[in-house]
Amino acid sequence: MVRLEHIGIAVKDLKASNELFEQLLGASNYKVEEVESEHVKTAFFKAGESKIELLEATAPESAIAKYVEKRGEGIHHIAFEVEDIYAEMERMRAQGYQLLNDQPKRGADNKLVCFIHPKTANGVLVELCQTIRE
Amino acid sequence: MVRLEHIGIAVKDLKASNELFEQLLGASNYKVEEVESEHVKTAFFKAGESKIELLEATAPESAIAKYVEKRGEGIHHIAFEVEDIYAEMERMRAQGYQLLNDQPKRGADNKLVCFIHPKTANGVLVELCQTIRE
Repeated sequence: MVRLEHIGIAVKDLKASNELFEQLLGASNYKVEEVESEHVKTAFFKAGESKIELLEATAPESAIAKYVEKRGEGIHHIAFEVEDIYAEMERMRAQGYQLLNDQPKRGADNKLVCFIHPKTANGVLVELCQTIRE
Repeated sequence: MVRLEHIGIAVKDLKASNELFEQLLGASNYKVEEVESEHVKTAFFKAGESKIELLEATAPESAIAKYVEKRGEGIHHIAFEVEDIYAEMERMRAQGYQLLNDQPKRGADNKLVCFIHPKTANGVLVELCQTIRE
């Protein structure tokens, strides 16, 4: 794991939460991006070398919609940047962590991502992410 | 807010969780510290310029014990480093955020800390922290 890349926060209303985090962090988001395959709309804020990612569901089948319905708004996941996501996924599997996807998938912010099941990581939904270099 | 300083994760068994996060991050914790006033035992891992703080309750009245009982293990708070915690607390108050302590208190890792109520921050327990320079 290279570093803490971002924290994902599930929100109900991206517009209202954008304003709230703008006030909190004293800076505006630098990007808003919709990830259609995941049914989410995201906004990114810089916080040092890490980022805050706000996530609003765009459809009821979105994992974010289900999370908010069950637990309310709040911290949804933490993401660590890795240099080789295939190697890290193999390392995690070998150590008994349960991965939520067999292959990396395309995430927001130009990343390949994979999630580790919270039940094998202390109740924390952990994302591994690797920046796609075109 | 200067940067994301750490993520606090509530755990039931610090020893077991230490092993889990050592495997996950591929590195050992660099510090274990008990904060008696907060009834917690903590362990810190580096993850780039941010840290992961594991927190185990040492008494039933600990906020961590109550959190784990209610919600299970998981991400408990996120902390932002600030340069002047008194000024930031004043700024937060003026913007309508509810602070959980009126004055900064001494936290782990040589910090003055203050918490913002999750109900005024999208369900996220936010910590402001300032490093104490002796």
